[in-house]
Amino acid sequence: MSNIKIGLFGFGVVGQGVYEVIRKSKNAHAEIAKICVHDLSKPRSVEVDPSLMTDKAEDILNDPEINLIVEVINNADDAFSIVKTALEKGVPVVSGSKAMLANHLPELIELQKKHNVALLYDASSCGSIPVIRNLEEYYDNDLLLEVKGILNGSSNYILSRVFDHKEPYESALRKAQELGFAETDPSFDIEGYDSLFKLVIITMHALGTYVAPEEIFTYGISTIHDSDIQYAREKGVKIKLVAQVVKVNDEHFTMFVMPEFVYPSRYIYSVDDEYNGVVIRGECYDRQFMFGKGAGSLPTASSILSDVMARLHGYRYEYKKQNYLQKPDYTTDITLKIYVRYSETNIQHVLDFESIHEQYISAESNYVIGEIKLSELIAKREKLRAKDLFIANIPIFFLDRDN
Amino acid sequence: MSNIKIGLFGFGVVGQGVYEVIRKSKNAHAEIAKICVHDLSKPRSVEVDPSLMTDKAEDILNDPEINLIVEVINNADDAFSIVKTALEKGVPVVSGSKAMLANHLPELIELQKKHNVALLYDASSCGSIPVIRNLEEYYDNDLLLEVKGILNGSSNYILSRVFDHKEPYESALRKAQELGFAETDPSFDIEGYDSLFKLVIITMHALGTYVAPEEIFTYGISTIHDSDIQYAREKGVKIKLVAQVVKVNDEHFTMFVMPEFVYPSRYIYSVDDEYNGVVIRGECYDRQFMFGKGAGSLPTASSILSDVMARLHGYRYEYKKQNYLQKPDYTTDITLKIYVRYSETNIQHVLDFESIHEQYISAESNYVIGEIKLSELIAKREKLRAKDLFIANIPIFFLDRDN
Repeated sequence: MSNIKIGLFGFGVVGQGVYEVIRKSKNAHAEIAKICVHDLSKPRSVEVDPSLMTDKAEDILNDPEINLIVEVINNADDAFSIVKTALEKGVPVVSGSKAMLANHLPELIELQKKHNVALLYDASSCGSIPVIRNLEEYYDNDLLLEVKGILNGSSNYILSRVFDHKEPYESALRKAQELGFAETDPSFDIEGYDSLFKLVIITMHALGTYVAPEEIFTYGISTIHDSDIQYAREKGVKIKLVAQVVKVNDEHFTMFVMPEFVYPSRYIYSVDDEYNGVVIRGECYDRQFMFGKGAGSLPTASSILSDVMARLHGYRYEYKKQNYLQKPDYTTDITLKIYVRYSETNIQHVLDFESIHEQYISAESNYVIGEIKLSELIAKREKLRAKDLFIANIPIFFLDRDN
Repeated sequence: MSNIKIGLFGFGVVGQGVYEVIRKSKNAHAEIAKICVHDLSKPRSVEVDPSLMTDKAEDILNDPEINLIVEVINNADDAFSIVKTALEKGVPVVSGSKAMLANHLPELIELQKKHNVALLYDASSCGSIPVIRNLEEYYDNDLLLEVKGILNGSSNYILSRVFDHKEPYESALRKAQELGFAETDPSFDIEGYDSLFKLVIITMHALGTYVAPEEIFTYGISTIHDSDIQYAREKGVKIKLVAQVVKVNDEHFTMFVMPEFVYPSRYIYSVDDEYNGVVIRGECYDRQFMFGKGAGSLPTASSILSDVMARLHGYRYEYKKQNYLQKPDYTTDITLKIYVRYSETNIQHVLDFESIHEQYISAESNYVIGEIKLSELIAKREKLRAKDLFIANIPIFFLDRDN
């Protein structure tokens, strides 16, 4: 059985986890041959033979002994340059860089084909939950109707503290950062971009179509307010940051990242704290629910290990769904039902609602509940970033074949 | 892309589901070329071109056009004979027959190797939940510590009716049969054999070791009594029929099927009605929970479709874990903590407890809670079938690495 010699880029929280997990697994037949970091002098909690460390990418990329690159660095541009160079040299890569992947997937798929080389990245979406692999291999059929879930542990942790422990938002955010759940840049988590990037990757493997991040409506939780929480509690729902891709009819699908009112009967209602949960819905099999640790050093590293061992057996993604007959197209021409809380902004001046169901005005805050096109939300997205606004999706069913 | 021509054995609930699902999927590139049934005159709810139907196995097995057998018949001996013949002829098979598989896995693995041919059977364990594929491919490493779950929808439905709806056991059993959740022989479900067969298959893919069904302690729910339910309610737990395989130390694992007191903090506590739920626990990734429809016509058929499409891409199980270094061995030399309710039987005369923690005696019923070797339960299993006894496992942790 061939041995895998790994060149590891990045030795932060995840990189150190990868080092630990590879050492632990007796059957991985893998070893870390070289570790490339940005700053050699930075103190690290894991002790490593100094001869393994380098700060020069070429020490890995030009080493003929190294037959697998594991890339878990933070900077998306650097990550892309490393992955591209490796693939062009015909060296397979395991990556955890969701921002890099979400922005460059079409080119990365071309590079894999052109150089007949594998790029695996299950760790990039939902840490230890095997979402990508299952969409690629097991839900490899056209019965799939929807993938919906809580894909970001940090924002979910904050919302759990706020909802279940009645903690103020600011203190919950601080706690998430202290516990290391939050990304280096917290806006990544709380503005929904982390969920967005994962959703772009998931959609590629769910429906075979790439939609660029900038084309997708993304709204986070940073402007959530006591009155929103109060409203949700009164209605018996939780507010969760939900990413979803869903077939709206046989010809079209849509996707977006938004806070959502989640009812107690839904599987994701009970996904609390830093956990992730994904619901895969299809014709015939109804809903499958996958739940686990979506982030953190060792859970993410164990997902990297799964991809490393898959390489031991020559596995690669085949992107079969790209070639499917009658593939649905992306649309934003769909109507959503939303809740908008506002104070200063004259909301009906900003947003063109199709219809208003409810309207509430008080000295403290106002809200409307109404129907609106997703395309309208995208058109007005800059204006919706106002500090006095908060938007939440009220789920409706688009295509309800089984239930 | 090559077309798959399927010879289908069995046209009951699952077989008719397979027919529907294959027709629905435009990208399966598969068609059902022939259907073999036991009794051609039996009326069926799905309308099929009569020229597709036959009652002679040879019409499928000798047809050179047919390049995949899908076998979903009830009789385990007939199923084995069909699958064996097909594999010997080099024709790949997708099977849903858990009893057949659990009893013949070592021979079936040999046949696959000898004739270089694939046998896939994800539908055999937990219907639409992709347990086997994930254990084989994604949890393809030695970090795995435990697989534990509710693998039988019918007994779980009965227990849910009894616990959540306070229905008598007999009426819940009748309802399960009316709804078609129960197997043809209900003892299969309620005595734990259905769960046992699935556990044997799961263990092969979880740890790479085959343990024959008769070597495994299996105890069902048919003797459950109001006083057991009363006791569980008072303790704030539910009684669920749980199958588990768990590493007890680095050298050994154990496995058994038994009713268990499930605490509200556990993932499987909320697996109710006819659903299945599986928890996969490992070093580094802690617990992954998979939840979905474990039985029924279309959910099982959609799992068959996943295996059919996997064949389109040449997929086969590699049984890699059979070759793992330091594979743990099966042991029954472990101590469990159990609850035993009895009335006539002098239980301490029958069972050799290591220690007794609690003892309760009343006019209606008696129980003991104590520690006992699993090997002792196996040695006395015939005596434990007495109608006045009920046994439940009280979970303890064997090997707690992460938490």
